[in-house]
Amino acid sequence: MPTNSFGVHSEVGRLRKVLVCAPGLAHRRLTPTNADDLLFDDVMWVENAQRDHLDFVNKLRNRGVEVVELHDLLADTMAIPEARAWLLDRKIIANEVGLGLLTETRAFLDELKPRELSEFLIGGLATSDLPDDFRSGYLSLAREQTGVREYLMPPLPNTLYTRDTTCWLYGGVTLNPLYWPARHDETLLMKAVYQFHPDFAGATVWWGDPEQDWGLSTFEGGDVMPVGNGVVLAGMSERTSRQAITQVAAALFAAGAAERVIVAGMPKLRAAMHLDTVFTFADRDMVTVYPAIVDGIHAFSLLPSDKDPGVEVVDEGDRSFLDVVAASLNLERLRVIETGGDAYASERQQWDSGNNAVAVEPGVVFTYDRNTQTNALLRRAGVEVITIVGAELGRGRGGGHCMTCPLIRDAVDF
Amino acid sequence: MPTNSFGVHSEVGRLRKVLVCAPGLAHRRLTPTNADDLLFDDVMWVENAQRDHLDFVNKLRNRGVEVVELHDLLADTMAIPEARAWLLDRKIIANEVGLGLLTETRAFLDELKPRELSEFLIGGLATSDLPDDFRSGYLSLAREQTGVREYLMPPLPNTLYTRDTTCWLYGGVTLNPLYWPARHDETLLMKAVYQFHPDFAGATVWWGDPEQDWGLSTFEGGDVMPVGNGVVLAGMSERTSRQAITQVAAALFAAGAAERVIVAGMPKLRAAMHLDTVFTFADRDMVTVYPAIVDGIHAFSLLPSDKDPGVEVVDEGDRSFLDVVAASLNLERLRVIETGGDAYASERQQWDSGNNAVAVEPGVVFTYDRNTQTNALLRRAGVEVITIVGAELGRGRGGGHCMTCPLIRDAVDF
Amino acid sequence: MPTNSFGVHSEVGRLRKVLVCAPGLAHRRLTPTNADDLLFDDVMWVENAQRDHLDFVNKLRNRGVEVVELHDLLADTMAIPEARAWLLDRKIIANEVGLGLLTETRAFLDELKPRELSEFLIGGLATSDLPDDFRSGYLSLAREQTGVREYLMPPLPNTLYTRDTTCWLYGGVTLNPLYWPARHDETLLMKAVYQFHPDFAGATVWWGDPEQDWGLSTFEGGDVMPVGNGVVLAGMSERTSRQAITQVAAALFAAGAAERVIVAGMPKLRAAMHLDTVFTFADRDMVTVYPAIVDGIHAFSLLPSDKDPGVEVVDEGDRSFLDVVAASLNLERLRVIETGGDAYASERQQWDSGNNAVAVEPGVVFTYDRNTQTNALLRRAGVEVITIVGAELGRGRGGGHCMTCPLIRDAVDF
Amino acid sequence: MPTNSFGVHSEVGRLRKVLVCAPGLAHRRLTPTNADDLLFDDVMWVENAQRDHLDFVNKLRNRGVEVVELHDLLADTMAIPEARAWLLDRKIIANEVGLGLLTETRAFLDELKPRELSEFLIGGLATSDLPDDFRSGYLSLAREQTGVREYLMPPLPNTLYTRDTTCWLYGGVTLNPLYWPARHDETLLMKAVYQFHPDFAGATVWWGDPEQDWGLSTFEGGDVMPVGNGVVLAGMSERTSRQAITQVAAALFAAGAAERVIVAGMPKLRAAMHLDTVFTFADRDMVTVYPAIVDGIHAFSLLPSDKDPGVEVVDEGDRSFLDVVAASLNLERLRVIETGGDAYASERQQWDSGNNAVAVEPGVVFTYDRNTQTNALLRRAGVEVITIVGAELGRGRGGGHCMTCPLIRDAVDF
Repeated sequence: MPTNSFGVHSEVGRLRKVLVCAPGLAHRRLTPTNADDLLFDDVMWVENAQRDHLDFVNKLRNRGVEVVELHDLLADTMAIPEARAWLLDRKIIANEVGLGLLTETRAFLDELKPRELSEFLIGGLATSDLPDDFRSGYLSLAREQTGVREYLMPPLPNTLYTRDTTCWLYGGVTLNPLYWPARHDETLLMKAVYQFHPDFAGATVWWGDPEQDWGLSTFEGGDVMPVGNGVVLAGMSERTSRQAITQVAAALFAAGAAERVIVAGMPKLRAAMHLDTVFTFADRDMVTVYPAIVDGIHAFSLLPSDKDPGVEVVDEGDRSFLDVVAASLNLERLRVIETGGDAYASERQQWDSGNNAVAVEPGVVFTYDRNTQTNALLRRAGVEVITIVGAELGRGRGGGHCMTCPLIRDAVDF
Repeated sequence: MPTNSFGVHSEVGRLRKVLVCAPGLAHRRLTPTNADDLLFDDVMWVENAQRDHLDFVNKLRNRGVEVVELHDLLADTMAIPEARAWLLDRKIIANEVGLGLLTETRAFLDELKPRELSEFLIGGLATSDLPDDFRSGYLSLAREQTGVREYLMPPLPNTLYTRDTTCWLYGGVTLNPLYWPARHDETLLMKAVYQFHPDFAGATVWWGDPEQDWGLSTFEGGDVMPVGNGVVLAGMSERTSRQAITQVAAALFAAGAAERVIVAGMPKLRAAMHLDTVFTFADRDMVTVYPAIVDGIHAFSLLPSDKDPGVEVVDEGDRSFLDVVAASLNLERLRVIETGGDAYASERQQWDSGNNAVAVEPGVVFTYDRNTQTNALLRRAGVEVITIVGAELGRGRGGGHCMTCPLIRDAVDF
Repeated sequence: MPTNSFGVHSEVGRLRKVLVCAPGLAHRRLTPTNADDLLFDDVMWVENAQRDHLDFVNKLRNRGVEVVELHDLLADTMAIPEARAWLLDRKIIANEVGLGLLTETRAFLDELKPRELSEFLIGGLATSDLPDDFRSGYLSLAREQTGVREYLMPPLPNTLYTRDTTCWLYGGVTLNPLYWPARHDETLLMKAVYQFHPDFAGATVWWGDPEQDWGLSTFEGGDVMPVGNGVVLAGMSERTSRQAITQVAAALFAAGAAERVIVAGMPKLRAAMHLDTVFTFADRDMVTVYPAIVDGIHAFSLLPSDKDPGVEVVDEGDRSFLDVVAASLNLERLRVIETGGDAYASERQQWDSGNNAVAVEPGVVFTYDRNTQTNALLRRAGVEVITIVGAELGRGRGGGHCMTCPLIRDAVDF
Repeated sequence: MPTNSFGVHSEVGRLRKVLVCAPGLAHRRLTPTNADDLLFDDVMWVENAQRDHLDFVNKLRNRGVEVVELHDLLADTMAIPEARAWLLDRKIIANEVGLGLLTETRAFLDELKPRELSEFLIGGLATSDLPDDFRSGYLSLAREQTGVREYLMPPLPNTLYTRDTTCWLYGGVTLNPLYWPARHDETLLMKAVYQFHPDFAGATVWWGDPEQDWGLSTFEGGDVMPVGNGVVLAGMSERTSRQAITQVAAALFAAGAAERVIVAGMPKLRAAMHLDTVFTFADRDMVTVYPAIVDGIHAFSLLPSDKDPGVEVVDEGDRSFLDVVAASLNLERLRVIETGGDAYASERQQWDSGNNAVAVEPGVVFTYDRNTQTNALLRRAGVEVITIVGAELGRGRGGGHCMTCPLIRDAVDF
């Protein structure tokens, strides 16, 4: 399959190919002590999380979706000598591993089979993973430190949420500078894949490069939706900044790849949330919505402009976000499924990723089993709901939408 | 005075020249809501903090110390056109200011007098500082964001603690990569000064460059003490990592500038503390110590080595940190003044920077007035204690040692 | 069955009768916003938690244990008119429900069937549970408040942990004053049961009465173990105070019901933990232990004394807690199963209640399925391990030991 | 002076007599570790806090106010044998001091002079205050515990805020059940004073008794203002509940002591704030207001009713709190001084008790010196502002209004 077939042209068109990442070593490293640093709310039972993730993958495949998994993809990439060298040249450096441990760590990793290396790249390399005869003073020093500095390569448990790291927006991709330093290396792994894996060669990169410092310009895929009709939605949140959104808009407009970016200014009191934790599409004209947040969104439209910097900003003022989106898609209005149940249940289900549906085709979505009330409302509205087990996977506060990075998805008509 | 006279050769030798930074606009930006993000525990009454800081400066001058102040230094630097261009080229960029606001913001700043520019560089440039007729859609978008992203240049209130940003270690300086992203730009300001201000031209830089990404390699001056006799102490803490300490040691050893770096592995449960919050020198052989922490330090010695990477690590095991330091200075033992009073008072005074003394010569130190019991113990031991008012200045949890960056300090004999 | 057959004479002798409480309405009230106030870490999927709890109950029954459930017990009790009046006279008062709502609320509750009333007593009565034509100004006022004050009767989700509320210690019971005000009413419900339910009539109460104010004297069953041989273990923790432990010891000694209380002074840094979160019995002489905490326990022995107040305190100093316990049971030493796996797994499993086993007879214990490594070690040591599903039940940070209040358990020989 | 002259008939009429409590031993017990438990944000420099408090008292006296101080009042009371016995009978009990320490602790306290006893009653009695030959096992056990349980009598640093503990509302007083258990004993001390001190004998108590358990019915004076014209304002906040407010209203109405209670339903997101942290009177018709909170208040009026429970609730719906208050005082509107300065300064000053003014007569108020901008606005509006030093006193987040409990204050005409 030629790479130039990659592209995501809607949120609900037929999903043909998707990237996921299975739970693994990185999640075995999570403890109550370090979970916060690694951005997880709770530890998970990794074996069961793996079982439930595999079930998700199988159900996607049964629906005709081609699923690629990040450990596999990275292992394939690490089998290519120049890719391995490129990545280890950037990971095994004094600023990360520490002086005195470079040669041996590199030698240790160079000995590994591609799959083993892939496991450590995602799962982290702890000082305890090395033989004790490694330069002992240096190892002893490293073991005295806490948190990620104790690691020679830090664990990356948030790779589980492939949605955030890279985004296909119509015919090209962004390599996202993520908000938390603890996640920066995720994008570096993806760059290795995009640069060296043959399936991805020649992909158009709209914006982003993990080898640069992006400052306040951070961008996460959970906030970004190429909804079709030349429109991209972008949540402006704690994690996704105006500094990044406007740059991406400029790049898309310059390439003629989009005609409008609708910015969803998330309410300030809940700045931490991705747009896709409170708003996702279930059908061409239907969304699931957590109204307590979505009603507070302040919308802006970014439009192409002849004048520098090529982007015009229109403050939509009091217009509701849902109306702005509907109009941009030539719809009279969106059909809205609110998070189900009473005040208690609604808040509980939003928390449990009840609004984090991912569609495989118009009107067919995956959600967690535990959001029974929202799922019932979706079904009553004619949506086919396929459930995945969320008991373990949901503990990082992400659902089906977060765990998938669509690579090929068809357009829908508007 | 020729630059090559800069150099800090001890912790207690005669202090001849020092860098401080007065409280100002950055502290007027502190609110209960944003104080955490900006790393302050509480808001301060800025006018009084300024008065108390000025009193500190005057007392230093009365002791014969030449005091330079960062706003002044930066204003002098910004009066040099190429320095102004160099710094604004690095601050007024899309990743920080955001697209659509670059030209006008740069124009606004270019109009400012050097002193005004210096104020905004340290104090931050809020969206509300700009005239409302600035590209309104873009400003409106910016005002919708929270925290530092709402700023066009973020406030840098931690410049108050000049100790952290750069360290003179014997005859050269380090330009430190600080732990918190909110402090990164402090080092960029200092680089502008070192590069363009005539007084600093030609200074030897051992290590560090704010234009590079240092990853886990972070280093803060509050953890670093060039105690003399070729020895440097380095607290390995949350903020100062082994990755950085070993690199600095290698650089010092390679230049023949030091013979030993003693690493103080801070107890893991209190990882956040700088070494100088629990241990400072008051005289050639006398230290103030907060034993609850210092007793838990695990010491390592870094020594020059012929083998790559030029540094050997010796785990000092059970030897007490105080003994390791004493021996390195050819002292039989250190005289120790513990934080004064009962269990309550001792903990209270450590908190109020009771162990954060800075010496102007052997046996003459500055401390906060509020640590009356520790001050009494120091005086009883023959130390001259000059007090500064800590009611406001102390709210950022730093004392006289944190607020001073020695530029010229004599050696003492060991 | 005559009441005087109640009694718990060991931690591992045959368990004959036990009290549990199924998840229900109280857990449906948990949201991310109020979970902290109600002492839960996370919301749970109530339907699945109920399924898993039922499975636990069935497995207990299959082992010959008679299981009584609190909703049932309370419904039986509420079918007795004087019991209903006694409890509602204490719950439906101005200090809890608020003036202006008393008559109607009482009338509403008086109409309910016993089972319905039991549900609201445990699950809480929200202002939204009442018809809108209830005195509207007062209801409107109540809805303006937050947290438990918004309720007319607060939800009691921690009833799930029946272990804490009352403890059978040999032939009598304590009605415990719990640490958190949010749990006080649990003990009031239990007093209604003990006072009015025919099965419990005549039970000997050693100590405690929810109608009194106990001040700092708080006591929770998770810290208390009647291990046999006249010995009681008592964790002195954030939740269980010396003020309470010494009173219970005095009461037991005065009645000749125990000969020794061993106090486990929990390490100060982790004061919040119950003893049974780090130490439980799996067999006559075998314990599961989380060494990172248990190694730091400071043991004291309380012994009967002729002198007022009838209790002598012996500081065990440096003797290990495990040795003190072993000696008190005439054992040479305890066989110890430490929380399994490497440093990561061990911390993870302690968190997931890996040390919170409950025995149904010597060498047969219930634990959560997710602690696979600790379970494997127990099995390798010859223990029969029966697992229960912890995905939902475990979210309140309590396991099988916490969820069971033994009513009848045989002694074992020492 | 006959007791029946006590009474507070407005918020701004001439203040004739007031109760304060100087900082002291209780504040010396505050450390960074226990400050949270004792409800303080930070430790204070006690000597300076005492100096600043004394200055406040002197300035009050210079204005003709009779000032009584709680340590003095309690010492006078403890000089009365039956008062001493009454109070120690309630403090030196097994639930607080712990078994085994009662006799000796009581004997120790019985030996003390009244003033010394008063110091310990307010400042707390630590295990370390006792001679080591006190029953050593018991003391050792006590020292193993943390927080207030380590104390034999807990420190009561919040006595500094005499406003909260008791409130004179027109001709009678309430003995308030405070929200935090750590403050309960404050009211017990006050009951001893009211019951036994000759100056207070015969005072009318509307409501409240520290010897009873009030459950959710908590009431703090910082939320309560007898503004005159038969009106009482009551903030319904985290600390002051509808359960208490409605009971107090019923008691006042039954006695004919008030005609209206206006409930200020504080915005839910900031539930923790007392009404007097965002709203106080500076003159007969002038208030200082922090609009960010006050604009969100939902007002209710409680009125006398013939029907049980004697109180009618009127939901004021969308009417602004300020308008409801103005109308109740027959004013066309209130003159409003908002917290001064820009968005930063306004938030900073509210935090620093900028809205916590206390009047000594109409148009003459005490505030902290640090709120320079709000003070300037008050002065510009013709108010005489007398400042007190807030550097230390303000660290518990309370100002002049919080630190004063008016005992006699004249009415003003409306």
